[in-house]
Amino acid sequence: MAGPDPALLSVNTATVRAQWRMPQIIDALVRHGIRGISPWRDQVADAGLKDTAARIRDAGLTVTGLCRGGMFPAEDRAGRRAALDDNRRAVDEAATLGARCLVLVVGGLPKDRTGRVISKDIAGAREMVRDGIGELLEYAQGAGVPLAIEPLHPMYAADRACVNTLAHANDLCDELCPRGRDGLGVAVDVYHVWWDPGLRREIERAGAGERLFAYHICDWLVPTNDLLNDRGMMGDGVIDLPLIRRWMEAAGYRGMHEVEIFSTANWWQRDGDEVLLTCKQRHEAVT
Amino acid sequence: MAGPDPALLSVNTATVRAQWRMPQIIDALVRHGIRGISPWRDQVADAGLKDTAARIRDAGLTVTGLCRGGMFPAEDRAGRRAALDDNRRAVDEAATLGARCLVLVVGGLPKDRTGRVISKDIAGAREMVRDGIGELLEYAQGAGVPLAIEPLHPMYAADRACVNTLAHANDLCDELCPRGRDGLGVAVDVYHVWWDPGLRREIERAGAGERLFAYHICDWLVPTNDLLNDRGMMGDGVIDLPLIRRWMEAAGYRGMHEVEIFSTANWWQRDGDEVLLTCKQRHEAVT
Repeated sequence: MAGPDPALLSVNTATVRAQWRMPQIIDALVRHGIRGISPWRDQVADAGLKDTAARIRDAGLTVTGLCRGGMFPAEDRAGRRAALDDNRRAVDEAATLGARCLVLVVGGLPKDRTGRVISKDIAGAREMVRDGIGELLEYAQGAGVPLAIEPLHPMYAADRACVNTLAHANDLCDELCPRGRDGLGVAVDVYHVWWDPGLRREIERAGAGERLFAYHICDWLVPTNDLLNDRGMMGDGVIDLPLIRRWMEAAGYRGMHEVEIFSTANWWQRDGDEVLLTCKQRHEAVT
Repeated sequence: MAGPDPALLSVNTATVRAQWRMPQIIDALVRHGIRGISPWRDQVADAGLKDTAARIRDAGLTVTGLCRGGMFPAEDRAGRRAALDDNRRAVDEAATLGARCLVLVVGGLPKDRTGRVISKDIAGAREMVRDGIGELLEYAQGAGVPLAIEPLHPMYAADRACVNTLAHANDLCDELCPRGRDGLGVAVDVYHVWWDPGLRREIERAGAGERLFAYHICDWLVPTNDLLNDRGMMGDGVIDLPLIRRWMEAAGYRGMHEVEIFSTANWWQRDGDEVLLTCKQRHEAVT
């Protein structure tokens, strides 16, 4: 199978968050001929939204997504209202940045203000997620910002996202906004979904609804030493990346391939240019 | 909802593996009035199979399962043959111990003899699992030992088990041996399946096939600090244990509730009697 078009590489700014602030990241992407970027909101805020938007525009980068909205479940009505307000701000930021989508990490079990989980009702949390996306959707449509539900690996069900399969994300889309062109879709991150025996079918289903908004790549390491920050560089783990790309393409996805690696012990310790060079090489060679 | 019958408590020997060898574990269970045990093969081998079987019989304990068979995928035919041979020995040991089932942790991606993963073909691994269970089944039926497929959490898909949902385990049963009374069923461990939005439906499906052979309990901690050995004591995490027990009972499960906790930093550091006392208290109070 032929390697992917190098022009389709995008880099999520978390991948080099330990090395650089936003202006340096943008400069480095340009230096390496990388055409896409997916920024995190805290990194944007650190550098300033308008300044970042101008730099990205001047650099000619495609913003493959803004990370992230979501985190809908909360202890009470006030908490859910605060989450919705924050999501509206995220939509505005995505619009300012010209992002192709706002990525939604939907949130796990409801927490109190100290961050402690206060409920074991995961079905209830999933209802809050559905309602939260439903409420946000109209605002996002008005702003012209597509929302991309990102199913997260089941190991994050309690504390980060209680939507843990692409099937569940597709179900939410079917319920809330069945046509992707109306502004609700999915982000497929191989790290979260590679294990799923129903993955091919659900990618096809998402494609049929024109809701494949983003494709995130990295790798699953064996062993994985940390639940959060031990993601692998493409090729260093066990995910059959060409196979999943083929499924995405067959389902109609024509967007970029966004590298998102959280790696405390390895990639965040290295020189940022080495990281980006490796992203480019591995994207061509093994994905 | 009323607490469970205390007589239904069983303890998996891994829960106190750091504290005691097998004879001491059996004595301690008797001392605490715990009526069920689920031993690991290495702990049995350490103490001797016949001696362990005699002690368990003399103590009047129910053996809720033997841990574990499985690990079917391998690099080559010789490796798969070796796995099958080892599984036959596991069946024999389960028969000697009078175990209610042999728990199958089916294995992940194929590894070489050094334990390194040598393939990214998870669909192929799943075929090896299906074929391996199919080959083992006749032998197990002859020995009168039911096989219980245990779906493991998706975070173990690469290295321990590529059957990661109860739906997949049910599919395998449907294909290989649809009636549980013919010797193939499932082990439901809350740690592995609690996050699954289809859990209730799949428990009902397993119950309809009379294939609910075992029920394992512990808890999911937030945060979880280790992928393998940071399981929580019931009540210390976020799993709605009474709800899942209710689903199991509604689906016809009448067996024991087996506590299986791997906990390097906490429960394996404590006095074994304290661990068992806590298991008893929490079983009654929060499951």
